[in-house]
Amino acid sequence: MRVVDLIRRKRDSGELAREEIEFLIEGYTRDEIPDYQMAAWLMAVVLKGMTRAELAALTEAMLYSGKVLNFTDLRPKHPHSLEAIPGLVDKHSTGGVGDKTSLVIAPVAAAGGLLVPMISGRGLGHSGGTLDKLESIPGFRVNLTHEEFRYVLSFCGCALIGQTAEIAPADKKIYALRDVTGTVESPYLICASIMSKKLAEGIEALVLDVKTGSGAFMKKEEDAVALAELMVETGRRMGKKVVALITDMDQPLGRKAGNALEVEEALEVLHGGGPEDLREVCLELAAWMFHLGERVDSLADGRRLAAEMIATGRARDKFREIVTLQGGDAAVVDDPDRLPRARHTADVLSPASGYVAGTQCEQLGIACVVLGGGREKKEDSIDHAVGLVFHKKVGDSVKQHEPLCTIHYNSEARLSEARRLVEQSYRIEPSAPRQRRPLVHRVIGE
Amino acid sequence: MRVVDLIRRKRDSGELAREEIEFLIEGYTRDEIPDYQMAAWLMAVVLKGMTRAELAALTEAMLYSGKVLNFTDLRPKHPHSLEAIPGLVDKHSTGGVGDKTSLVIAPVAAAGGLLVPMISGRGLGHSGGTLDKLESIPGFRVNLTHEEFRYVLSFCGCALIGQTAEIAPADKKIYALRDVTGTVESPYLICASIMSKKLAEGIEALVLDVKTGSGAFMKKEEDAVALAELMVETGRRMGKKVVALITDMDQPLGRKAGNALEVEEALEVLHGGGPEDLREVCLELAAWMFHLGERVDSLADGRRLAAEMIATGRARDKFREIVTLQGGDAAVVDDPDRLPRARHTADVLSPASGYVAGTQCEQLGIACVVLGGGREKKEDSIDHAVGLVFHKKVGDSVKQHEPLCTIHYNSEARLSEARRLVEQSYRIEPSAPRQRRPLVHRVIGE
Repeated sequence: MRVVDLIRRKRDSGELAREEIEFLIEGYTRDEIPDYQMAAWLMAVVLKGMTRAELAALTEAMLYSGKVLNFTDLRPKHPHSLEAIPGLVDKHSTGGVGDKTSLVIAPVAAAGGLLVPMISGRGLGHSGGTLDKLESIPGFRVNLTHEEFRYVLSFCGCALIGQTAEIAPADKKIYALRDVTGTVESPYLICASIMSKKLAEGIEALVLDVKTGSGAFMKKEEDAVALAELMVETGRRMGKKVVALITDMDQPLGRKAGNALEVEEALEVLHGGGPEDLREVCLELAAWMFHLGERVDSLADGRRLAAEMIATGRARDKFREIVTLQGGDAAVVDDPDRLPRARHTADVLSPASGYVAGTQCEQLGIACVVLGGGREKKEDSIDHAVGLVFHKKVGDSVKQHEPLCTIHYNSEARLSEARRLVEQSYRIEPSAPRQRRPLVHRVIGE
Repeated sequence: MRVVDLIRRKRDSGELAREEIEFLIEGYTRDEIPDYQMAAWLMAVVLKGMTRAELAALTEAMLYSGKVLNFTDLRPKHPHSLEAIPGLVDKHSTGGVGDKTSLVIAPVAAAGGLLVPMISGRGLGHSGGTLDKLESIPGFRVNLTHEEFRYVLSFCGCALIGQTAEIAPADKKIYALRDVTGTVESPYLICASIMSKKLAEGIEALVLDVKTGSGAFMKKEEDAVALAELMVETGRRMGKKVVALITDMDQPLGRKAGNALEVEEALEVLHGGGPEDLREVCLELAAWMFHLGERVDSLADGRRLAAEMIATGRARDKFREIVTLQGGDAAVVDDPDRLPRARHTADVLSPASGYVAGTQCEQLGIACVVLGGGREKKEDSIDHAVGLVFHKKVGDSVKQHEPLCTIHYNSEARLSEARRLVEQSYRIEPSAPRQRRPLVHRVIGE
């Protein structure tokens, strides 16, 4: 088997066999295939695509390049038999602005009896990352060993960590190469990257939150749907239960963006409050997790169970447990003032009276990065305190000079650029927008 | 300027500016841009193509990555003025089986008053190379220094050497990468590679011999025409006179293939004999060289001048001069038995009576490689003596058990594979083929 022949076959729109894809991925992971051959093959994949069989083989080869965790022994027993009940379920979002759903859903799902071994990512580009948000809680450790991960999971049904060196090393190496060779933007490669990491958690079911709109990576709904379909089919080919919700990211989710600010807002929801849109998306995603994890017989029951976990405070208690077990200051749960706070705030005022017709949501995410809340390069450090608080959502009426958004900042030097981005992001029009975009556009794999 | 942005632009079918292409090629040649980024960009070019402006910029950037020779001071003066007469002309063939035209044309053109600074290649794959053929002449040196090259050229109007380290180093580096990344087969990259090397000779005009048919790299005529058009336009954008002849390579040219055998056959033509097809293609190419080099007023005059150079023996004398000046045994010109000879011969007999309907010409070239006359890998050494002598051309009648071809070989072990390839190459049919393919299919840029 010669690598150059496999590259040429893909270049000429041909299909690679499972063993050929394994040969490529294993050889690359072991440094036997050079970067330049992998780069050429990746570009051919970007431009020629893959069959579903190739994609499943790629995902599986990347998954088995490293350790696949196994927590089936932690599953609870059925109350009337000795049979273990499935319920290893996770949720993954393709990322957006103000998307703090994981912080709500993980404790809700665990409180409702699921096992949630959540391996999350860091913010990159305009989108935030669950790990960065969690690290704004003083002391919170996301770099648990596999033994600690298992311990926290067994104790409270949920643990939230970062990718370890043993998880999908092929993905780590390929992702770094894609980043510098213009081969990031391929639904096939994105699918294989996400699914290989998520399935390494040893889960039985996965709920995907595929964002679409101006603040999502997939700006067009058809691209989001295409990616969602690939991920659902790939997961199912590998024996997992998978659904994907296409959710809206044409404006930030909730009213806060920025690491500590998002933890604060997630706590609002766990305390029974919080913005309506955030709460609704969280309930919907959690409902699907309960449904796929066989904790309920219907989606409606899933919604009720999720709402109950919040109303009774059990999800909030679960979050407190997780924070404690992962070394964090659990007192933040009831006293969010213990979270880091920016020293200064500045309001962005509406230039006119009218209605918020739309936002350039990605620019709002970039404004957070500019403030220091995200990374421009992987090695950048993060200021957890900075961010944006949105006073007006799309469709809201606004008076001239009324605040649209408050910028939380620590550096004067960074304020003006962030302010410019926020100002440009809001579109104010004289009349209210005719139609509101739904929060959940579609469900793929229902 | 970020390399990844240039890769992405090409990937998305965008156009790169001249400075951007220069940045890529200069950076890569200086080892500042890594192989993996160049590989991704090359694959994007293979699949998305280039505009004519991009191609000219690429060719020029590769050309100026190294030394561009200048022999204008060697041009003769006009008989009635002190003005120098142009006439730095070369010919380049895309390669085929039995294509020894350079050995005939170079001395014909030089004898007719042109300056021919010919930098040639070695055989690769199924096609032969001028340098390997010349090296079958005992003592012949193709690795002249630039000073020696200039000396031979100034003395006899022609010199034949291999690519030096100073000529188009970008092409050398990019070609090695293309070879292992499945990015060889792009008319744009082929064009830039050929034209950057040829224009480094400092020529004023170029006649391209673009082969088409089963023994050519461009099997389909439309592909040959497309490549020819790119090369003609690129050369003209760079201020050169260029035409391309699409010539037939559906069967070997002449009756001999293999290094020493081809020198022998070229000498037959220079002595006024030789096979008709070879002679005709040589006269046609030389006629175009005389025409573009302004030695004649019409193509017909060019043909007459070329024929005259052969008939008067002046081209043969010129060849003797070149061989002498480049250190070779000039006695071979009149005594070809001094060339290396294979120890054994074996005939391939016709399996039936009928007519030769066609050949799998590439397989005949591969048979030569199998015998040891070509390279499977760049570092392979060559047996100059081995090769094939074809007794029957397409359209010829043949009796059962009459020899189709004689194999000249030195190793019994290699004979059987070569014989199998030759046997499979000939298609014998009961009736004569209706139409003969013309020797020159079309002229591009006339």
